[in-house]
Amino acid sequence: MYRIGIDLGGTNIAVGVVDTQHRIISRCSASTLAHRGAGEVIADICRTVETSLHQAGLSLADCDSIGIGTPGTCDSECGVVVRAYNLNWFDVPVCKLLEDRFGIPVHLSNDANCAALAETLAGAAVGHRNVVLVTLGTGVGGGIIIDGKIYAGMRSAGAELGHTLLMLDGEPCTCGRRGCWEAYASATALCRQALDAAKKNPFSALAQLRSESITGKAVFDAAAAGDSAACAVIDRYCQYIAAGLTDLVNALAPELILLGGGICRQGDRILVPIRAYVASHCFGRRQGAMPMIAAAQLGNDAGIIGASAL
Amino acid sequence: MYRIGIDLGGTNIAVGVVDTQHRIISRCSASTLAHRGAGEVIADICRTVETSLHQAGLSLADCDSIGIGTPGTCDSECGVVVRAYNLNWFDVPVCKLLEDRFGIPVHLSNDANCAALAETLAGAAVGHRNVVLVTLGTGVGGGIIIDGKIYAGMRSAGAELGHTLLMLDGEPCTCGRRGCWEAYASATALCRQALDAAKKNPFSALAQLRSESITGKAVFDAAAAGDSAACAVIDRYCQYIAAGLTDLVNALAPELILLGGGICRQGDRILVPIRAYVASHCFGRRQGAMPMIAAAQLGNDAGIIGASAL
Repeated sequence: MYRIGIDLGGTNIAVGVVDTQHRIISRCSASTLAHRGAGEVIADICRTVETSLHQAGLSLADCDSIGIGTPGTCDSECGVVVRAYNLNWFDVPVCKLLEDRFGIPVHLSNDANCAALAETLAGAAVGHRNVVLVTLGTGVGGGIIIDGKIYAGMRSAGAELGHTLLMLDGEPCTCGRRGCWEAYASATALCRQALDAAKKNPFSALAQLRSESITGKAVFDAAAAGDSAACAVIDRYCQYIAAGLTDLVNALAPELILLGGGICRQGDRILVPIRAYVASHCFGRRQGAMPMIAAAQLGNDAGIIGASAL
Repeated sequence: MYRIGIDLGGTNIAVGVVDTQHRIISRCSASTLAHRGAGEVIADICRTVETSLHQAGLSLADCDSIGIGTPGTCDSECGVVVRAYNLNWFDVPVCKLLEDRFGIPVHLSNDANCAALAETLAGAAVGHRNVVLVTLGTGVGGGIIIDGKIYAGMRSAGAELGHTLLMLDGEPCTCGRRGCWEAYASATALCRQALDAAKKNPFSALAQLRSESITGKAVFDAAAAGDSAACAVIDRYCQYIAAGLTDLVNALAPELILLGGGICRQGDRILVPIRAYVASHCFGRRQGAMPMIAAAQLGNDAGIIGASAL
């Protein structure tokens, strides 16, 4: 039997048919065009599911279930997307709508939860039962796996790991609070930190970039080329990431922490200083009980694979 | 059948015989006198167990198991107290030593974990599956219950909730890091904040207290009597507590957060402003999904009851 995984993002609808080994055997995608409203987006999701099944030479009778990963807050129990700003979806009962159409069970979770689950099934966390995935992108997302299952808390509202404090009354955060980890450790925050550094260091390589060219990758590239202002930004940025990871180690003591999102492509450039910081700052210094910290492996496939396994 | 619960603290060994309804039917205690070394303390634990059984008119044959709650870091799987500074115990295989003596299974966990478990079985958290207990005392401790069971993470090293950041590079913490929640929200921190306020407000009621008389209770009493400096200290202290609880709501979304430790006797004086702060600062403002925040109920019995249920 097969399962269908849907990774619904603000930009794309990505659907895959997944086999029992968590391999994507067929995939199909479409633009989300969220401004159209939920009804039309869901109609496109349905068409994309049918196309991916057709491509695989399968029918719904070959599938056990459908899973959906979405951004924002989902109530997995009720199958409702409670609040997803970049879909402009509020209280959309997406599971019921798809069940009515396809007649097989439909499950729902947050996209970061799906990605975390996928890594335990087919990625960097295979064989681990207690894992935390942190995604460093526009924001800082989180997925918590406890005893092999997604832990999302009451009404699936948990794992908002980006919205824990790094600095009380610090930088403003998109959530309305000040000082959240996301406001220091997201790729967006890195760009802001680099812009600040460019202003303060007018002869640096950073300052030669136009402000719209200051992306996360550009800052890492400038640091790799030896620009000392960029190096200082990256060093401090790694400390921000690591300070939040230290909190996760102290609070949850997972066996493994995975970093996802575009920033994790920097590999050892961030992993080495992050591991050193966490080891020297975590409670009791964790002799023999230090969680591994590594990069996620599945990239964009994680959403489909995790959703299919819900 | 019965179970034996041992609450081993830096000052006292408290032992209770507990029935299947989680009631303590007999109890006995002794001074820990930790400076004697683990061997003598364990001998006293054994005598105290025997006395409490004798008092209850029971024998070991009436008991299923023994549980021990200790401060510090315990490896529950191995039954070893890894590091407990106020017992001066390091790598003490207490479960094996008691099993050799009594011939029934012996389980071990951290005291805050035991207290959290006890509250779910016989206290303020009965009927809840996902609960976090935060103890506000000399330090800030934590116990996490997920799906009705203690979650302590790898080598039981998790739930060190006091050692998550409130303020990067802030106040020094006992753990060696700076800016931990414990350094702002413990009773110890409250006393430090009150001392600072007394210095800055020489005509306040706080400033009339001798520094050794500035306890947590004295600060609350001065605030209740209308001293504005003390009121400001308490208001800010409640914000520190609430800021850390907001992080717990965002990360774990438990159904219920319980506050334990001496400070929680202040009841609504702290609970009302804390609930208001968390509701207005948590992610998405949690319409309909706001965890309850309440005081723990079992007080000093929590340790015995929770240990007995390990």
